[in-house]
Amino acid sequence: MKKQIRVLGFDDAPFEKHSRGKVPVIGVFFRGGDMLDGILATEVDIDGDDSTETLIKTINKSKFKPQLRAVFLDGIAFGGFNVIDIEELNKKTNVPIIVIIRKSPDVAEMKNLLKRLKMNDKIKILSKAGKVYDAGKIFVQIRGIDIDGAREIVKISSTHSYIPEALRVAHMIGHALKKGESRGRA
Amino acid sequence: MKKQIRVLGFDDAPFEKHSRGKVPVIGVFFRGGDMLDGILATEVDIDGDDSTETLIKTINKSKFKPQLRAVFLDGIAFGGFNVIDIEELNKKTNVPIIVIIRKSPDVAEMKNLLKRLKMNDKIKILSKAGKVYDAGKIFVQIRGIDIDGAREIVKISSTHSYIPEALRVAHMIGHALKKGESRGRA
Repeated sequence: MKKQIRVLGFDDAPFEKHSRGKVPVIGVFFRGGDMLDGILATEVDIDGDDSTETLIKTINKSKFKPQLRAVFLDGIAFGGFNVIDIEELNKKTNVPIIVIIRKSPDVAEMKNLLKRLKMNDKIKILSKAGKVYDAGKIFVQIRGIDIDGAREIVKISSTHSYIPEALRVAHMIGHALKKGESRGRA
Repeated sequence: MKKQIRVLGFDDAPFEKHSRGKVPVIGVFFRGGDMLDGILATEVDIDGDDSTETLIKTINKSKFKPQLRAVFLDGIAFGGFNVIDIEELNKKTNVPIIVIIRKSPDVAEMKNLLKRLKMNDKIKILSKAGKVYDAGKIFVQIRGIDIDGAREIVKISSTHSYIPEALRVAHMIGHALKKGESRGRA
């Protein structure tokens, strides 16, 4: 696989938990793990249901779409419980989706939370994301790509830490928007 | 000079000309031209007078300040005519300042404009920025560093285009905040 493949990483900005309104979602294009070459900004409802639809639209209208080899998501939900349907996202964009999970997976915990909050439709979406795979120091959920391909793309894209540069930078931008300053985390 | 020197590049976001209010100013830390390792966000008054003071405060409270080898500015003014006093900025931060001018210098033109707008105090600040040097495909104004040092830092920092990565990325972030999507320009 070429080192210069174009990838896109999305993360949401920090927000007050249990507040209402919208949270910014930042998308960062990279060529592999080397060169940042585009930035997107959109927003989703806190604890809402529009993240899948918003990401589909944002990806499909982006100018680098034809060259896009993978979309990374920093976790399976943005804006709290706005769970992303990665099956739908892959189907409607035709781009492989790789969810990056930084800490050991807490899918069961999240399902319990959603149950307590009576968000049963979100549990269904979460379940559709499928198996959580070990991918080095992180975990992934995937759609539209096999685990070997996903591991390779993650490896190529992660030049300065164990997560893809596109996500590391998207996280920093979101954090800076909210707090004024962000330093990289490894 | 080491390739991994830490630099900080500031650019303002696009805004409606002759509007009022504030414009976001984005600062991006890089290690040379290779690794993005921090992002700052602040704001200045459109056509106001607070850019110098705002940048001084933002730089001095940033966590990477002790390692900072140069600050790049994308032009001598942010938010329209909010002209930056680079002599003061250098004095109060003790960091070398390098103004990057993308197109052939329009200092005379800007002075005429400021004269017509009766902003004579801003002309004084502009004049203090001193000589415009040729630095390859761009031009620079400098304070707290000599032209050979400035050219070397610009060269080390400009890995993917003829302007420093820190500025190229700061520009893209500002643009995405305003317009939703930004692609890199060379």
